Amino acid sequence: MSDILKEVLAANEEYAANFGDKANLAMPPKRRFAILTCMDARLDPAKFAGLAEGDAHVIRNAGGRASDDAIRSLVISYKLLGTREWFVIHHTDCGMETFTNDTIRNLLANSLEPAEFDGENWRDIGKGPGSRAGEYIEFLTISNLEQSVIDDVERIRSHPLVPGYITIYGFIYDVKSGRLIEVPEASRIGRATI
Amino acid sequence: MSDILKEVLAANEEYAANFGDKANLAMPPKRRFAILTCMDARLDPAKFAGLAEGDAHVIRNAGGRASDDAIRSLVISYKLLGTREWFVIHHTDCGMETFTNDTIRNLLANSLEPAEFDGENWRDIGKGPGSRAGEYIEFLTISNLEQSVIDDVERIRSHPLVPGYITIYGFIYDVKSGRLIEVPEASRIGRATI
Repeated sequence: MSDILKEVLAANEEYAANFGDKANLAMPPKRRFAILTCMDARLDPAKFAGLAEGDAHVIRNAGGRASDDAIRSLVISYKLLGTREWFVIHHTDCGMETFTNDTIRNLLANSLEPAEFDGENWRDIGKGPGSRAGEYIEFLTISNLEQSVIDDVERIRSHPLVPGYITIYGFIYDVKSGRLIEVPEASRIGRATI
Repeated sequence: MSDILKEVLAANEEYAANFGDKANLAMPPKRRFAILTCMDARLDPAKFAGLAEGDAHVIRNAGGRASDDAIRSLVISYKLLGTREWFVIHHTDCGMETFTNDTIRNLLANSLEPAEFDGENWRDIGKGPGSRAGEYIEFLTISNLEQSVIDDVERIRSHPLVPGYITIYGFIYDVKSGRLIEVPEASRIGRATI
């Protein structure tokens, strides 16, 4: 058994031993909202947004992007589980700002071992074989952080399955301060219309 | 400003005020692993798996499914940010077990207001207009929980961009106890091969 697996199971043992009355929580989010944010290890949405178990849906992917899959999740979130406010939260120092589709496609074609970042460029240090399957993936990289929040709120706002009564807020989380900074233009686009 | 927005910002203010040395965390996950799990409000992966900020990637969507978008995120996770072990964690009492593509497509075609669950069936209580755009979404519902974990580990394991040295574990999180229960068949399929 790997060290990581042992550690995760030990931490889980402790969590379960102090589970308290969380067994009684209902499936629908009590506070009727959802957060879409990045998978980045430095982000703990429950902590930075003050969520207890049972409060809110949390959707995370690379970049916190409004991918088709995030939209699938958001549609289920409001239609079946009653959320009414959604936060799109990207963050400073995001890995998605450091590469393009071409960068990662070339790295993957070269090898499937991890690449290294020198602060400006990604370099492949691994050995092949790689795979060209990256050509079929749109990686949803970010070239401008505010714009990516605006674009994603806009994409969600204009989706035919997203009703006008939902409010969508756009934010950037600052990994240096822990602070949420609103992107006013995004929140303006995300305003409920009915 | 909505109550939810006020509460989130107040909680964030407090978090940022006690941010400590987290400003120094690096982008790559310190413990080199990733968790793919459900957006369900009752799940707090940082708590149930013992993660501090900076430790691990967390990817979440409706069901914790190995969607194309989850695979996009996992590829970025290992290739650029060096993770080597991945946990696929579905959970008991998952909303994704309560409906099918047809169910939600019909509900959405009827109205974009929330539906109600009577413990067996979803009923639409809202008013139209709805939208037929749900026809274009595969909702990745779950009919058997263990099987969905096995299927998802298998999909990730056999993806051409996922190298053999990555270990993938399959688990079910029990919302009644807080406990992680391994799905041995999934973890067997997910074993590293090199």
